[in-house]
Amino acid sequence: MAPTLEGSARALWPDFPRGPLSRYRARASFSGAELLLFLEGEDVVRFKKTIFSALEKDPLFARSRGADLALEKYRELSFLQCKRVLEYGFFSVEDLAASPLRVWALIHCLGMYDWSLAAKCFLHLLVFGSAVYNSGSERHFKYIEKIFNTEIFGCFALTELSHGSNTKAIRTTAHYDPATQEFVIHSPDFEAAKFWVGNMGKTATHAVVFAQLYTPGGQCHGLHSFVVQIRDPKTLLPMPGVMVGDIGKKLGQNGLDNGFAMFHKVRIPREDLLNRTGDVTPEGTYVTPFKDTRQRFGASLGSLSSGRVSIIGMSVVNLKLAVSIALRFSATRCQFGPTEEEEVPVLEYQLQQWRLLPYLAAAYALDHFSRSLFLDLMQLQRGLMRGDHGPRQAELGREIHALASAGKPLASWTAQQGIQECREACGGHGYLAMNRLGDLRNDNDPNCTYEGDNNVLLQQTSSYLLGILEHCGPDGARFRSPLRTVDFLEAHPSILSQRLTGTHQVDWLDSAAPLAAYKWLVCYLLQESHQKLIRERRSQSSDFEARNNSQVYHCRSLALVFLELTVVQRFHAYTHGPGVPSSLRAVLGRLSALYALWSLSRHTALLYRGGYFSDEHTGTQMESAILDLCTQLKDDAVALVDVIAPPDFVLDSPIARADGELYKNLWNAILQERGVLERPSWWPEFSGNKPVVGSLRAKL
Amino acid sequence: MAPTLEGSARALWPDFPRGPLSRYRARASFSGAELLLFLEGEDVVRFKKTIFSALEKDPLFARSRGADLALEKYRELSFLQCKRVLEYGFFSVEDLAASPLRVWALIHCLGMYDWSLAAKCFLHLLVFGSAVYNSGSERHFKYIEKIFNTEIFGCFALTELSHGSNTKAIRTTAHYDPATQEFVIHSPDFEAAKFWVGNMGKTATHAVVFAQLYTPGGQCHGLHSFVVQIRDPKTLLPMPGVMVGDIGKKLGQNGLDNGFAMFHKVRIPREDLLNRTGDVTPEGTYVTPFKDTRQRFGASLGSLSSGRVSIIGMSVVNLKLAVSIALRFSATRCQFGPTEEEEVPVLEYQLQQWRLLPYLAAAYALDHFSRSLFLDLMQLQRGLMRGDHGPRQAELGREIHALASAGKPLASWTAQQGIQECREACGGHGYLAMNRLGDLRNDNDPNCTYEGDNNVLLQQTSSYLLGILEHCGPDGARFRSPLRTVDFLEAHPSILSQRLTGTHQVDWLDSAAPLAAYKWLVCYLLQESHQKLIRERRSQSSDFEARNNSQVYHCRSLALVFLELTVVQRFHAYTHGPGVPSSLRAVLGRLSALYALWSLSRHTALLYRGGYFSDEHTGTQMESAILDLCTQLKDDAVALVDVIAPPDFVLDSPIARADGELYKNLWNAILQERGVLERPSWWPEFSGNKPVVGSLRAKL
Repeated sequence: MAPTLEGSARALWPDFPRGPLSRYRARASFSGAELLLFLEGEDVVRFKKTIFSALEKDPLFARSRGADLALEKYRELSFLQCKRVLEYGFFSVEDLAASPLRVWALIHCLGMYDWSLAAKCFLHLLVFGSAVYNSGSERHFKYIEKIFNTEIFGCFALTELSHGSNTKAIRTTAHYDPATQEFVIHSPDFEAAKFWVGNMGKTATHAVVFAQLYTPGGQCHGLHSFVVQIRDPKTLLPMPGVMVGDIGKKLGQNGLDNGFAMFHKVRIPREDLLNRTGDVTPEGTYVTPFKDTRQRFGASLGSLSSGRVSIIGMSVVNLKLAVSIALRFSATRCQFGPTEEEEVPVLEYQLQQWRLLPYLAAAYALDHFSRSLFLDLMQLQRGLMRGDHGPRQAELGREIHALASAGKPLASWTAQQGIQECREACGGHGYLAMNRLGDLRNDNDPNCTYEGDNNVLLQQTSSYLLGILEHCGPDGARFRSPLRTVDFLEAHPSILSQRLTGTHQVDWLDSAAPLAAYKWLVCYLLQESHQKLIRERRSQSSDFEARNNSQVYHCRSLALVFLELTVVQRFHAYTHGPGVPSSLRAVLGRLSALYALWSLSRHTALLYRGGYFSDEHTGTQMESAILDLCTQLKDDAVALVDVIAPPDFVLDSPIARADGELYKNLWNAILQERGVLERPSWWPEFSGNKPVVGSLRAKL
Repeated sequence: MAPTLEGSARALWPDFPRGPLSRYRARASFSGAELLLFLEGEDVVRFKKTIFSALEKDPLFARSRGADLALEKYRELSFLQCKRVLEYGFFSVEDLAASPLRVWALIHCLGMYDWSLAAKCFLHLLVFGSAVYNSGSERHFKYIEKIFNTEIFGCFALTELSHGSNTKAIRTTAHYDPATQEFVIHSPDFEAAKFWVGNMGKTATHAVVFAQLYTPGGQCHGLHSFVVQIRDPKTLLPMPGVMVGDIGKKLGQNGLDNGFAMFHKVRIPREDLLNRTGDVTPEGTYVTPFKDTRQRFGASLGSLSSGRVSIIGMSVVNLKLAVSIALRFSATRCQFGPTEEEEVPVLEYQLQQWRLLPYLAAAYALDHFSRSLFLDLMQLQRGLMRGDHGPRQAELGREIHALASAGKPLASWTAQQGIQECREACGGHGYLAMNRLGDLRNDNDPNCTYEGDNNVLLQQTSSYLLGILEHCGPDGARFRSPLRTVDFLEAHPSILSQRLTGTHQVDWLDSAAPLAAYKWLVCYLLQESHQKLIRERRSQSSDFEARNNSQVYHCRSLALVFLELTVVQRFHAYTHGPGVPSSLRAVLGRLSALYALWSLSRHTALLYRGGYFSDEHTGTQMESAILDLCTQLKDDAVALVDVIAPPDFVLDSPIARADGELYKNLWNAILQERGVLERPSWWPEFSGNKPVVGSLRAKL
């Protein structure tokens, strides 16, 4: 296979220009081309290349990042780009099921270019589209074609002004009127206005609206979704009874128009109820295939997971872009040196390595986790499509839900903190808008919030783990999960009795050691959380209070640590597996060890407190190992970035172009800005109109 | 004194409207008015009120945060506001020396309104002005009046495109030409262009330019500063030989025009050398009152500290604004509850308290530190003005330099992390631009970078501490510093032998316990860093390498922990001092304990590793104490915010108005945005111009 690989590699690997980065590239311990193909596979690499080059050739996608793009202009541009993406037809409806990794890659390519564009396409085609397709039935298929040719434009309206996390408290109503066979959609007051809905601000003609369904006689059947037309596609003017508008400027993603809507007794046909989990007969009787609301809710877990899994992927993309920028900058920015004459690249400083290389390792480890969880989710969805209602399918749904609910917090926070570290590591130049770290930070930020606030989501994962502990029988049978992420808990009594003694620093240079420590840590926190909950349940007035008072230092930490373990475990297995080419084993092993150790080192206090560590040297060995791994990886850093960074046009950061000509590129970009050397239009305000100091003091 | 205080309090304390926040205000354990006057004093409270109400009454300061302000418009507005501030004449030149706390308060008031405006004024009047005044001599006083009436507009040009932190590597040159008695200012290439200079982009007519001074014969005398005219005040067009422009959009502070300049053999009069530390005679001989460059450098430490002390203050202001927004939001946002009908404010959740209340405590503790360090700096500057060159004055300069160099990192990072936590704690509404958390984050961000990158600055502080350890004699005489921040190190052998045993949770509810732990921690890290440096010096080729390899986990941690101790110590002394009214003791004591414990809890790993902690319970007691303090403080949180928050007009966040009408204010603000309900101007692009899906596939 090697010759073919070499041929493909030569064709797909960019021919990097010689320049200041060449010396690092020459020092790399591995072939970037080989790693790229090993990680992504030739089909996806080719597909990404096709997308990137289409964008680069098309003037509609020309870059203007440093510039001053007005809100309305930016939104127009994102809409036009979204249409153009459809014209390119990068994927077909069939690909959604047949080649999910291509769809996954397309979203990431568009996101690498600009999240506003990616979000606009994604919300219309996949979120609105899937909501109609998965929650509806054949009578709704008419909408699918209209979505793809943009006859209609869609949005997903769940959150209200006063309720987000607590979806049960959603207050929009849908009363069924058998006289006309219509639902009456109504917002009782402005606090129940749909709010934060992406695409709703300016573009959407149709919304999937979540409302409490009432049948005649006044019985409420809980939250259901409806297709509601909100604007006339011919004019983009609102439909009667719909007050729809734009919520205004956000911290980021401003090419996307987030909006609000209030409904004043808006009538829609009975058929526009998305009726997969419940329907209303023409006469007004509610019918559902599910026995109870709990079961009905369970059936929707899969779609909740899919949003969260997507966000994990988006966060990883942001982290990849940020570390690419900061590491290329660090390899070319020289400051200080051993003598007054000689300056060295800041990447040579241990401190800079320690700030950045763990995030590079995190980008690789989380990328693997993200892709593997996406494939697990596809497995779940294939089961759903087959109509599988067996216990394994249900368990798989619960396990993926638990992984996605903590994976989203871990990935979005790691990206958030990583981007900030990268921004600071680039000094002042990182603060210049054109270098893109600000946009990355601002565009990544909502990943911490939407589809469930991170801190709230973590409770889902800890509940899953505590549930397993509480329901296990003496045979430990409950400790088997379809993806085997909790199987090790079967041995929790013996794991908890483990103590680490007599380690040497070299023991820490592989991820096996932190992996063992992580298993102990999860068992320790699971036990501590379990006992805390029991104590709180005894002393508190309600289970609600008991759970609330067991989050900090207990359930919250448990969920995060369990997810870190899962990421470490999966990346350890992947990098140590038999399929890894021998030439890549060293570098992948180091990335795995660095991510594992660095993550674990945030929990050293617990390792000592609980007695897993006792010797003072264990802690110092771990720290030294992290620094040793940084030293081992720093000459590979530029090549590792070359594998994950998109082409210059997409990365769009003058301080991080592949040629490494930091100052030439930056200076050039600055001189290209409009009016850079011109005096301001308001110059007479300075030259003519002088203030009289203190002249207004009397007004104070 | 009580009756007078009551009278003042009544007049100066706002009459908060009744509303959703009233119930928390009613539950507060103390009088907000009393705390405000205790902390700030009546003069400053009155002065701030005057400033705020002048801004609120003046239409030039009308708010438009959510809106889309073009870069050039924003800069014009900031300039016009800067002139208006001069017209109000809030302070006189004399106040600079006589009432420094008023000047300090003015900067903070303007910063609370908008950092772009504050920075613009501050850079022109105080940074440029002080540079001329402090580095120059009588022959430069002509510039001072021109600064105050804006006949000229100034900037401070040190950083170059390729050099920031390493100021010794600055490459702009100033060659003296005795034939014309002029200096020739020259940038050898674009990498030596002055860069990032605030006010230089569009407004400044004059710059204090740092350049390597050369006398005839080619001798270089190191970095000196010169007043260089860069634009014609009559036209704002550049002077001949000066290429000056705008570096473009930044992540924040976009009302401030940062710029660049290249000099092509620009000639300036000999007298425009700022000659306090060195001068050139008309014939071309270099003369200096200092014996060597090291001494000359030492004399400039004071001015370095003053920039860093200012940034500490700016960071604290940002933290105050952010916690004010997040806590008022949390006290009025209800989500979930013990029953389906009853929802509770999110502030009632322990998790939300734990996320926010430590930052509220940090705002109070750091505010006290910031003010006290500013007063120390004033003491230093009075010494300089008196011409004091005694050893105590020199020691004071070194100690303040050490405190400011780690204080800036601690304060700016605490603000950075606090603002981010506040943003996330406000969920989606925190992501809406009009609620201001984005601007706070973006405007605070450069505090981590300018006046010295945080990580680089920390080395100054650790070097100071290590220097003390290395130079102390057997009598411990070196452990006395003018501000007594290092005196405790005299007992370091006995401190290091301390072990904490047999604590109870109640012991942790006062800041005395964490204070003792912090002292042990500083001694431990000082010893570890000292030994690490010795080992590295033995094994490394150069002292440069040895120092670089001793930063992570050693010197860097040492500097931060020492500064945290100093903040904790000062706030502990302040809140436990005899001058504290008895009615305020409880709440101030809790703030002090919470900040101390929460900061310390990040170092628990070291406390266990080094043996200061050994019992598992010690760690859990500390955590429980943090949560207990949060519970004790949550009913005081709204009143504590009322003390530090500016009026609604200045705070400018619809989700955080003093009336607590969260949704009414937010909804109102959204509906006031321009074009909120209008269809977009580009609607025909949707309605008429439909894409043909896949029509461009052939181009791929």
